[in-house]
Amino acid sequence: MFRKLLTLDEARQVIHQHFKPKPSGVEETTLLEACNRVLAEDITATLDIPPFNRSTVDGYAVKAEDTFGADENKPARLNLCGTVNIGEPTKTAVTRGTAVEIVTGAPIPEGVDAVVMVEHTERKDNALYVYSAVAKDENIMKAGADIKKGEKVLKTGQLLGSREIGVLAALGMAKAKFYRIPHVAVLSTGAEVTEPGRRLPPGKIYDINAYSLSAAVLESSGKPVYLGVFPDDMAELQKALKQALTSADIVVTSGGVSVGPKDVMPQALDSLGKPGVIVCGIAIKPGKPTTVALIDKKLVFSLPGHPTSALLVFHLLARPIIERMTGIKAEKNLRVKAFMTMRMFPAKGRRTFIMVKLKRDKSNRLVAEPVPTGLSGAITTLAKADGFVEIAENQQYIDVNEQVVVRLFKR
Amino acid sequence: MFRKLLTLDEARQVIHQHFKPKPSGVEETTLLEACNRVLAEDITATLDIPPFNRSTVDGYAVKAEDTFGADENKPARLNLCGTVNIGEPTKTAVTRGTAVEIVTGAPIPEGVDAVVMVEHTERKDNALYVYSAVAKDENIMKAGADIKKGEKVLKTGQLLGSREIGVLAALGMAKAKFYRIPHVAVLSTGAEVTEPGRRLPPGKIYDINAYSLSAAVLESSGKPVYLGVFPDDMAELQKALKQALTSADIVVTSGGVSVGPKDVMPQALDSLGKPGVIVCGIAIKPGKPTTVALIDKKLVFSLPGHPTSALLVFHLLARPIIERMTGIKAEKNLRVKAFMTMRMFPAKGRRTFIMVKLKRDKSNRLVAEPVPTGLSGAITTLAKADGFVEIAENQQYIDVNEQVVVRLFKR
Repeated sequence: MFRKLLTLDEARQVIHQHFKPKPSGVEETTLLEACNRVLAEDITATLDIPPFNRSTVDGYAVKAEDTFGADENKPARLNLCGTVNIGEPTKTAVTRGTAVEIVTGAPIPEGVDAVVMVEHTERKDNALYVYSAVAKDENIMKAGADIKKGEKVLKTGQLLGSREIGVLAALGMAKAKFYRIPHVAVLSTGAEVTEPGRRLPPGKIYDINAYSLSAAVLESSGKPVYLGVFPDDMAELQKALKQALTSADIVVTSGGVSVGPKDVMPQALDSLGKPGVIVCGIAIKPGKPTTVALIDKKLVFSLPGHPTSALLVFHLLARPIIERMTGIKAEKNLRVKAFMTMRMFPAKGRRTFIMVKLKRDKSNRLVAEPVPTGLSGAITTLAKADGFVEIAENQQYIDVNEQVVVRLFKR
Repeated sequence: MFRKLLTLDEARQVIHQHFKPKPSGVEETTLLEACNRVLAEDITATLDIPPFNRSTVDGYAVKAEDTFGADENKPARLNLCGTVNIGEPTKTAVTRGTAVEIVTGAPIPEGVDAVVMVEHTERKDNALYVYSAVAKDENIMKAGADIKKGEKVLKTGQLLGSREIGVLAALGMAKAKFYRIPHVAVLSTGAEVTEPGRRLPPGKIYDINAYSLSAAVLESSGKPVYLGVFPDDMAELQKALKQALTSADIVVTSGGVSVGPKDVMPQALDSLGKPGVIVCGIAIKPGKPTTVALIDKKLVFSLPGHPTSALLVFHLLARPIIERMTGIKAEKNLRVKAFMTMRMFPAKGRRTFIMVKLKRDKSNRLVAEPVPTGLSGAITTLAKADGFVEIAENQQYIDVNEQVVVRLFKR
């Protein structure tokens, strides 16, 4: 197989030429399950909010003209003829010279065009004295004043939280249409890795990537399908990849993509369908052996086995695609600016990513401190890094105190 | 019942005197369910990482002294005596004058104290020519170099994401102890509210709060227990509250706390256990009728019926307590700084909260634009506000272009 190292931008282009990320479907979901889901329909109000004219105060519903000229010295005298409670349809109609007791939120009875606040009245048996004139429409919230029937209130692609769910509830909707959450199969390969929870045979190490990448899928708003660890054996790998392609919309594997004789992943990928491998090696550090395939119109990201490299490449390539597959319109902001604490050099001819920890310095500036990667594969690097800083292929170095953009692993 | 309006700080103090938020329990959880959970134990490494000395390159395992003095012109000649594969225990021992083929990550055989990179060697049948000397320990990652057995790697109270889960996996742990997620019962009361999904009778409106507050509980890392809508009737309310107290660690209700004759919530709360109502009215705007009770050592937050007020008070009082009950140590940062677009005045003698929408102005500054609240209860206010700005009781106003802290409803 011909291996041409692509630049990161070329790799992104090739992936984009082969695959346009979009939601794999739409499903009806109840409001209780709608939090953090992406709306798959525009929501148009099917009723006025409020649905009827409501009183905005506790007091008396009147005809405004009956109060004209009333003041402290010369109250208007009206006859009380009933009460409107909240949540009850209005039965009583108000005619000239009469008033109806009303509470905040209760529907305005027929014939009424204003409400007098209880503070401006005095009541003696059936007589109501109004000490302050009210204008037409005073203390009344008109039907549709908040949301008009037919108004578009929420849009396709919006991520719903408590407030948007409140809007759906206000319209009486107990469910709505949401994009299906993309399912992402995750598996690890390699003769040296053992699943956590089992006894560790001599010469082996525990698998990290299937668990950390499953969690990274969740953090990208996808649903992980954990498949576990598979040996570097062609038949086993083919079986595992077939299962992954059947059970998910996208597949993420790690390990088996270096140049060793046992790295059968690219061959396994090519054997399963056309076009097979579309990216085989990227000029980045770390992450060079990254392989990407398209099989049955589904993307397979085969990441390096080193945990930090695997997570970095997941963030660079897989995460944006998973997020687009959720149907969300707005990009999630996973970047902060910080000052570099050290001069850092790129690897020759490769776009280089420096793992950094964010801290506050003495003057309370946010600074990015490189995490010593030491020997690749270090778990502590993974645990300590909050994100990474990019150095372009043609850039000489990032200087100490230079302001950089840090891409965060997690908000 | 005696109603004394407390300031917001007094209300917080009273709640704190009665209730110290802490997790309600600990449960063992698998790594696949550990994302966004809070660790309830310190994690100490039970093995070295790596568990054995590993090669960090592809090449040949040797005794360093056998290569001393070797260079391009005068290679050292060694006898090849086998291969160490990745994931296999080392059987071959290396003696003076011999070398063993080794791949990256494979365990270092006995007798070896350095690895020569394959690029610096030439192979002729069983003879290996080494063109570059290696120092002792060169290209070897020692057992425990990354994490030492006995080292504390994660702490109680840490929120786990993909990277921390990777650390647990590296140690072979398939599960760990996590704090129980606090369960929060949510119910709405009021004669005027109808559950979404049902037909809307005349004079009624759809309930918003039980759904928006359930989502707000999720956004606070709690688990909502949705109980629905109950009428303003003493017996029904008592039954609902009893059910809520049984099914959850904390209860959030809305409606039924204004001064109307039908606002039976405070009475219902007082009837269910000691001390009953501990806060009955707070000098804030909006949110004045807020009532808080302690029953059977559980907190009940009875919020106002207006959706914006309910959500605001939830954020001010309930959310910090729910978050503390998750066991998390670090506070979530839900604040940003922005410039006010308008001069805003507080309500007399009350701490006032202005709902704002965040925008970028022409010079790309983040600005906070007040959302017209209009008549209280407006749903559109809720939908448009990204957060709120506080004006202290004794503050005259917030000026236009003044920098303010915006507390966000959601990250």
